[in-house]
Amino acid sequence: MDMSTATHTVFSKRATQLTSSAIREILKITERPEVTSFAGGLPSPEGFPVPELRAAFDKVLDNQWASALQYGRTEGYTPLREWVAAQMSREGMTVDTDEVLIVSGSQQALDMLGKLFIDPGSRVLVEAPSYLGALQSFSLFEPQFQAVPTDERGLVPEALTDDLTRDARFIYVLPNFQNPTGLTLDRPRRQALVERCADLGLPIIEDDPYGELRYAGDPQPSLLKLGRAVGASVIRLGTFSKVLAPGLRLGYVVAPREVISKLVQIKQATDLHTAMVTQMAVYEAVRNGFLETHLPKVRALYQRQCGYMLEALKAYFPTDARWTHPEGGMFIWVTLREGIDTTQLLQAAIARNVAFVPGAPFYAGVKAPTNTLRLSFVTVPEARIRAGVQVLGELIGPAR
Amino acid sequence: MDMSTATHTVFSKRATQLTSSAIREILKITERPEVTSFAGGLPSPEGFPVPELRAAFDKVLDNQWASALQYGRTEGYTPLREWVAAQMSREGMTVDTDEVLIVSGSQQALDMLGKLFIDPGSRVLVEAPSYLGALQSFSLFEPQFQAVPTDERGLVPEALTDDLTRDARFIYVLPNFQNPTGLTLDRPRRQALVERCADLGLPIIEDDPYGELRYAGDPQPSLLKLGRAVGASVIRLGTFSKVLAPGLRLGYVVAPREVISKLVQIKQATDLHTAMVTQMAVYEAVRNGFLETHLPKVRALYQRQCGYMLEALKAYFPTDARWTHPEGGMFIWVTLREGIDTTQLLQAAIARNVAFVPGAPFYAGVKAPTNTLRLSFVTVPEARIRAGVQVLGELIGPAR
Repeated sequence: MDMSTATHTVFSKRATQLTSSAIREILKITERPEVTSFAGGLPSPEGFPVPELRAAFDKVLDNQWASALQYGRTEGYTPLREWVAAQMSREGMTVDTDEVLIVSGSQQALDMLGKLFIDPGSRVLVEAPSYLGALQSFSLFEPQFQAVPTDERGLVPEALTDDLTRDARFIYVLPNFQNPTGLTLDRPRRQALVERCADLGLPIIEDDPYGELRYAGDPQPSLLKLGRAVGASVIRLGTFSKVLAPGLRLGYVVAPREVISKLVQIKQATDLHTAMVTQMAVYEAVRNGFLETHLPKVRALYQRQCGYMLEALKAYFPTDARWTHPEGGMFIWVTLREGIDTTQLLQAAIARNVAFVPGAPFYAGVKAPTNTLRLSFVTVPEARIRAGVQVLGELIGPAR
Repeated sequence: MDMSTATHTVFSKRATQLTSSAIREILKITERPEVTSFAGGLPSPEGFPVPELRAAFDKVLDNQWASALQYGRTEGYTPLREWVAAQMSREGMTVDTDEVLIVSGSQQALDMLGKLFIDPGSRVLVEAPSYLGALQSFSLFEPQFQAVPTDERGLVPEALTDDLTRDARFIYVLPNFQNPTGLTLDRPRRQALVERCADLGLPIIEDDPYGELRYAGDPQPSLLKLGRAVGASVIRLGTFSKVLAPGLRLGYVVAPREVISKLVQIKQATDLHTAMVTQMAVYEAVRNGFLETHLPKVRALYQRQCGYMLEALKAYFPTDARWTHPEGGMFIWVTLREGIDTTQLLQAAIARNVAFVPGAPFYAGVKAPTNTLRLSFVTVPEARIRAGVQVLGELIGPAR
């Protein structure tokens, strides 16, 4: 006979503050096949290199199974770390293998950076809006979020006043095709940002999951490269989720040695190390320049999809709505006229089998506007993009 | 030109307290092939089912690649959760799928339980000695460790006085072939432990990585089963690291729904989810009862290896040394006569190319004895076990 479990269980303060997101609950129903969902952050499975990954797993389990199945080094599989270092060095800087740590997706890097930097009450600077998963991850360490103002060009470096940045532990930035806005920080702002952070001694966390998915405009230098040149401490996060496949859960951190060395100790306590078999298979898949032939196909796919969505927005959204025109990545950010509440709009849209993510949850440390929303365009077929955007346009109604 | 990075970086209190373990530094040299290492906690690669895992990865990447390579549910791959629930239910209790969470090795469960339960200064009860990786994992959340006394039969339930347990958040217990001692908690003590914890409303974390590797004595009921019957809240951790292979980084948590539900939110912030491809491959490997034919071979292997070490200890260690006789698992715990410092012994042993782990780091919340050590026997060939133990016996010297 099972009895009910004890009622005296005391959770930590951080766990008590965790609440089930109302939006997450709503979005659960978007998994129904009849729903056209612009809500997800899923890469397109059309971009998954299945035969190459299958061959890579086979090769590793045929020839290197004893290492692939055994415990491994916390730092990660050395040849994969070397490959990441070489990739970073393409920008014309020298990145050493011991400045690279392999992690279980870059989400894990955010958790470990929270552990590394945040005490309860520590000030943490984030873009307004910023990646929701980062806000959730940092939240577990009970920081005080401070929103950094942004405009239609993204983060505003001049806003990093002494007052705003005082005692801040780091600034978290997504410079390319930002999640959620799709905006890219231009070269002058990047330069101003790293110079300001170097002056302040403020570490920059540069999260770049989409950088390789640029399909328009010119590539911009990384904050890592620009920051190194002026003495800023930059911690750069990358991932294989968008260039290969997210189900592998594989990412990396590039950072100064003293940061990597602390992160290695933290990662050992967190999960010992990332799965060896996936690290070795991914290394097999990418070692001979495979991404150079693979990525152009993924970029072309995403560009097409983005185009479908932009056309539909132009056709069906009211003239008083504004939206971003991303040069890469997966997201378009829409700002509707004042007075529209996109959380209510979502309820109405769900009733008509269309879903998106309202913008408010992407803000921390500032009052969130209620009239923004994020649209993901990569996994929905063209006709459904058109029909779904039309539904949203009808629900929003004509310009006033 | 790269300049040195900023010097103002402020780490969190927890990160500042992280220190590089002197013993870990010493043990790095045990990776040299000429060193006979009894230090590791590595399972024997002879136990890895390579063809079965290769076939499982192929099957998944042939037939289910779209799910295997995509983002997945934070809770884990549902068929694998169902399999775990069914395994647990073999003991004669009902475990539901939504009481199961898949994690990236049970080390990750420790991290998430630290997040769930520990505020700075929270009291946490651990066996003396206990698993070093758990102590490191919990330490990141700055608890106050309280050691629970143990004797030659393991944890002493009667020691759980009101005073010792006051305001404790949980008790962490390894009931089977404990790491580091190899001891197994007997039935009466298990019963006394769960009853006491039910009275106290004290959650029990039951960590059972080695339970399937029993090669002597009778299986004991899990704390989960016994605890449920008396209303204790038991969180049970299991892993595929020792029954399949650790390089897959796959484990699971079985717990009351309200705990799983909080852990799911924590896991989402921590790493979104565990790699789908490994979850699905492991499910393919185990779904048809493979472990029932596989595990007897692993148990027989570990039993042989344990026997070699016990024989060598009897032959070469002084009569004033005591050691445990494990009924399963990977470790023997040795207590030498008072006055011997096993950290110094390790230095001398390393000079003769033999390694082990001194016992002191396995203690928290209590002054550690200096005369204990842990020996792992599973990966070293018989002749090297004999020769290595002989070297240690010479260094310890005859009984006094």
